[in-house]
Amino acid sequence: MKLSKKILGSLALACALVVSANAASDKVTWKLATSWGAEFPPFTNSVANMAKMVEEMSGGDFVIKVDAVNKHKSAFGIMDMVKLGQYEMGHTASYYYKGKDPVLLLFTSMPFGMNALEQYAWFYFGGGMELAQKSYEKHGMYSFPGGNTGVQMGGWFRKEIKSLDDLKGLKMRIPGFAGEIFAKLGCAVTNIAPGELFTSLERGTIDALEWVGPGMDVSMGFHKIAPYYYTGWHEPATELQFVVNRAKMDKLSPKNKAILETAMKTAAYDMLIQNYDMSATAWDKIKTEYPNIKIMTFPKPVMDAMKAANEDLVKEESAKSAEFKTVHDSQQAYMKKARAWTNIGEYAYIRDNQ
Amino acid sequence: MKLSKKILGSLALACALVVSANAASDKVTWKLATSWGAEFPPFTNSVANMAKMVEEMSGGDFVIKVDAVNKHKSAFGIMDMVKLGQYEMGHTASYYYKGKDPVLLLFTSMPFGMNALEQYAWFYFGGGMELAQKSYEKHGMYSFPGGNTGVQMGGWFRKEIKSLDDLKGLKMRIPGFAGEIFAKLGCAVTNIAPGELFTSLERGTIDALEWVGPGMDVSMGFHKIAPYYYTGWHEPATELQFVVNRAKMDKLSPKNKAILETAMKTAAYDMLIQNYDMSATAWDKIKTEYPNIKIMTFPKPVMDAMKAANEDLVKEESAKSAEFKTVHDSQQAYMKKARAWTNIGEYAYIRDNQ
Repeated sequence: MKLSKKILGSLALACALVVSANAASDKVTWKLATSWGAEFPPFTNSVANMAKMVEEMSGGDFVIKVDAVNKHKSAFGIMDMVKLGQYEMGHTASYYYKGKDPVLLLFTSMPFGMNALEQYAWFYFGGGMELAQKSYEKHGMYSFPGGNTGVQMGGWFRKEIKSLDDLKGLKMRIPGFAGEIFAKLGCAVTNIAPGELFTSLERGTIDALEWVGPGMDVSMGFHKIAPYYYTGWHEPATELQFVVNRAKMDKLSPKNKAILETAMKTAAYDMLIQNYDMSATAWDKIKTEYPNIKIMTFPKPVMDAMKAANEDLVKEESAKSAEFKTVHDSQQAYMKKARAWTNIGEYAYIRDNQ
Repeated sequence: MKLSKKILGSLALACALVVSANAASDKVTWKLATSWGAEFPPFTNSVANMAKMVEEMSGGDFVIKVDAVNKHKSAFGIMDMVKLGQYEMGHTASYYYKGKDPVLLLFTSMPFGMNALEQYAWFYFGGGMELAQKSYEKHGMYSFPGGNTGVQMGGWFRKEIKSLDDLKGLKMRIPGFAGEIFAKLGCAVTNIAPGELFTSLERGTIDALEWVGPGMDVSMGFHKIAPYYYTGWHEPATELQFVVNRAKMDKLSPKNKAILETAMKTAAYDMLIQNYDMSATAWDKIKTEYPNIKIMTFPKPVMDAMKAANEDLVKEESAKSAEFKTVHDSQQAYMKKARAWTNIGEYAYIRDNQ
């Protein structure tokens, strides 16, 4: 069979159309805005890890371009930008949007709340994801766990806290719900930009501060000034969030949707593990190089007062919002049974190996 | 332009060829053999979850068919079948192959070893994955974490263990390294098929047994007979394994390789969380319905003797194999720094919230 040039040309064009039609629905380029600087491990690793998995698993069809805060200039405006579709998705912390909607606080971490394993079990098997989607739906978004820090340390203090009296007038940087608790106990609570924290502590503008844990604290240098390092109580399992514009996500092909969901889930788990490694490595360095650092636990009367203040604050929020109460009650009920297992499982194992 | 029927036919055929050539490299059907029965949660959930993710993320191009043990009849022959290429991949526990190669034991869990978070940090950030690939390469396989049980309980006992004397002659079902430890301490150690465990305990053929944890133990009914439930020491983070034939994996397209690796990783993490939920739920039920169940910890002299026996066994294996020593040393070094962080982080948090 001999084909004319014209017919061969048509054949090629027709084939190209068929091939591209076949692939077209999976070709997507998205933009993601983060609340972080370009290099802020392990938070930025979670995003990069997720985007890399999506690109590789889609054979390059689904590309997610990441804008750090220096590009979009709006660390706490992620939700608005994603809602408006300026970005298809974002990476942030739910509790930054407490002012916009207090229920969102509950999807990050609560003082005296669940630890990371308990909380993931609540999210994926205890109804947490369903509650999160419900709470985010009214903001035009889907929300997914975006990386967990594990237990955050209680902060660096220049002086030991021996009693509730030592908190009166103490100038401390601590944000969020925990900040409100310390304020109730008489602290002068402030928030200070990360870049100014070391200088503020050094100059005595603040007497104490809370950051994250050894892995992220070590590069800040707080251990050089404030040698009392308190164990955590206020953010036992801080979960970051991937937020995704609902309309954009609904338009994805089933394949791309599956790829994105799996990549986000894996990146979140991975960050918990990466931060564990970072903290183990950093703590090893800190305690070797600064043997004067003392690990402290707040005295029982102080812990009890913090617990009572937390309960008061939760009651206030629950009285204002039935939705807050529903989510908080779900977490408390789940924690009760999960903690009983933690106590005889993971906790007993470490306790009996001291 | 008017095309003859013949030319149209050629056009359609050519297009079909182009389209199928484009997709051909990604179309794969694999078979996976498990060491488990068809329904054995959460182990079988990990496999089903992985296969589902692979199929969805590949848009149906990459399909993994699962054969349970009732099909292939070889619970402990997974490695051989995968090595020979009878199955492209398998789901099993590395320590079942201790007889074939003792180093494999180390990739499951070790008595007094790392917990799940520490161990995942070792696998992914502490050099563990590299060591695992090296150890599995000589068997013609790649190995990947396949799901973690978290801390396993120390087992169900009819009578309280008050001293080392109570272990002399005790008839206990406990396999693996821990079994050798109990044997060294004077127990009559046996292994019994899962289906006969309850009857053996009921009839006094055995006085005690170790299984997994509340989530998997509850359906076995041991709590109805043996009311002393001991906290764990022997399998603090039992990791199952996906094993993959090297030649088969090397032939996958980069896209399918990325999809498979991510799906296996996610399924492994997910199983840890699912088992946490199962154990929390089961323990809640057991302790409510059987309030006579007592949570016990082995007395310190017993724990010390178990630790000493474990160290002896590790020394014996290390003397026989440089590879065993290399992997074990890597785990011990990593655990030392990871545990220091666990102690001030996750552990202190639960301790201070009792």
